[in-house]
Amino acid sequence: MTMTQNAGDGSLFGVVDVGGTKIVAGIATEGEILATEKIPTEVMGGADAVTARIAGAIRSVQAQLGLEGRPLAGVGVSVPGPLDTALGIVSFTPNLHWVDYPVAARLSAALDGVPVYIDDDANCAGQGEAAFGAGVDYAHQVYLTISTGIGGAVIVDGRIDRGFRDAAGEVGHMTILPGGPDCLCGNSGCLEAIASGTAIARRARQLMIQGQDPTLARLTGGDPERVTAPMVFEAAASGDVLCQTVLDDVANYLGIALANIVMVLNPQAIILGGGVMEQAEVLLPLIDRRMRMHLIKVQREGLVLKRAALGDNSGLMGALQLVRRRRVSAASGDVS
Amino acid sequence: MTMTQNAGDGSLFGVVDVGGTKIVAGIATEGEILATEKIPTEVMGGADAVTARIAGAIRSVQAQLGLEGRPLAGVGVSVPGPLDTALGIVSFTPNLHWVDYPVAARLSAALDGVPVYIDDDANCAGQGEAAFGAGVDYAHQVYLTISTGIGGAVIVDGRIDRGFRDAAGEVGHMTILPGGPDCLCGNSGCLEAIASGTAIARRARQLMIQGQDPTLARLTGGDPERVTAPMVFEAAASGDVLCQTVLDDVANYLGIALANIVMVLNPQAIILGGGVMEQAEVLLPLIDRRMRMHLIKVQREGLVLKRAALGDNSGLMGALQLVRRRRVSAASGDVS
Repeated sequence: MTMTQNAGDGSLFGVVDVGGTKIVAGIATEGEILATEKIPTEVMGGADAVTARIAGAIRSVQAQLGLEGRPLAGVGVSVPGPLDTALGIVSFTPNLHWVDYPVAARLSAALDGVPVYIDDDANCAGQGEAAFGAGVDYAHQVYLTISTGIGGAVIVDGRIDRGFRDAAGEVGHMTILPGGPDCLCGNSGCLEAIASGTAIARRARQLMIQGQDPTLARLTGGDPERVTAPMVFEAAASGDVLCQTVLDDVANYLGIALANIVMVLNPQAIILGGGVMEQAEVLLPLIDRRMRMHLIKVQREGLVLKRAALGDNSGLMGALQLVRRRRVSAASGDVS
Repeated sequence: MTMTQNAGDGSLFGVVDVGGTKIVAGIATEGEILATEKIPTEVMGGADAVTARIAGAIRSVQAQLGLEGRPLAGVGVSVPGPLDTALGIVSFTPNLHWVDYPVAARLSAALDGVPVYIDDDANCAGQGEAAFGAGVDYAHQVYLTISTGIGGAVIVDGRIDRGFRDAAGEVGHMTILPGGPDCLCGNSGCLEAIASGTAIARRARQLMIQGQDPTLARLTGGDPERVTAPMVFEAAASGDVLCQTVLDDVANYLGIALANIVMVLNPQAIILGGGVMEQAEVLLPLIDRRMRMHLIKVQREGLVLKRAALGDNSGLMGALQLVRRRRVSAASGDVS
């Protein structure tokens, strides 16, 4: 995978995207990822083993490129949150079984003291899209990833806004339907509980169990447990009115959530990524219409709703943006 | 009215708070409003006449202080929005009958070319509280005014975030109860339609019309049109269970709205002002509990929910903060 923007000053960076099942690590210049390696996460080996294998993958890519003698200016790491970006600690990540794990310090130690910067996956994806993808033209933007869960990133005046304790952008847990379906977070009616890929499949499954949806019955061979979000889109595309209604509701909830975000932040652009957005052709116009219904003229004018452009690479490109921004900040004494 | 923070460099500023019925204009130093004059707005005379009388009031206060020879470094004006802060134009203010009115240029012309900066009333009140009031300790904060309407201001890293088109902080029009009561903005279920002073009175009035509320019947002499928000608080305090329930619902809606804002921005503090907050002793603990129910641990920890401290002076103090910040920005080429 390569992606070019500008050559920069010749510095080399490490970039890492840590997921629950796989990790992608690579070497990048200021504007381009030169090469990457994908390794399984293997959570059960423990956090330090994961860190050691990340360091190994970075060294391996560096060697493949014939750049093993060149020092790295820094490493940017995208990890699931919540976390403390200043201390480089992942506070609690169920997927990885990490609790208060100082991943930045440990990875730095494994890489001869190279500075390591971390940010959560949604913030990284948002920064990647803002710096290299669908958001390059906008100083004020909000990124949402709509997948099994829903996360986000807030960019104000070209800078990521992490809030007071690195917990800004948790848009998946905005209450959109008070008294609505329970959410894994302990609340009910959260956006994630009614508009994520998981929620789409769950709602369709309920309709199928009620015997209301022959298309899904056919697609799943009659087993409600096999309903997936892509199946709901497929059924809707084939004319299944119930599945179309499920998607209308999802677009309505997302439209309300986005409009609420616009009311607070008045961004110029909203960028939507994540697996559910593979269906952007169907979903984006529905969401756009619903969102605009709620906005005042000045907010609606010039507001762009776009699909993310970097696909699976947004996190890695965001890790690159993170490390190059952090390096500049560290040099200038800025703390952003 | 005087308020001291620091003496500054000896510069003098004009400060103005324009409302639909009255205008307060005054003279201030960097940290202190020296004296003010209150004049009726007299909307029907037209925008230019209002501007001329604002200029007159500023000159009059300056003369009273024996400072008529001293040039003003700038004038800060709080006006109802929406507006364009960069151009100094009020786009549309029903209360004032102003449409695309270049108030900054006109007031500047009436004051021998002194630079005039404008911001909307909620942003000014929020900046006033952040610089001189309840918000002085917090870099990340959100201000809400809960009155006949609901407005707000977003402060990120110590700077007001106006968004792309000066339309950030419109928290009163977040949809909190989809399908709920109609709002003046054309939508339904907006926070303002279910939790403003107007909404509190409306809901109680409905209950009284249904014959359910003998306390209100007594307080109003049987005329539902006479129900006001303070009456609802009075009835609730006297043990009226229906009015207590109305306030519980209001606290619930405000709690959801504030939690949604925290999900997006993770601020350190939320400051609540406006007339309804004169009942803060009753309402604040209810709102606080509801809000925290929805938050994740890291957002809840260290988050402060406070009543505004400057009362009616928040707008004027915010106009002062606006003009002193703008002057510094203008000198440094910054545009914030």
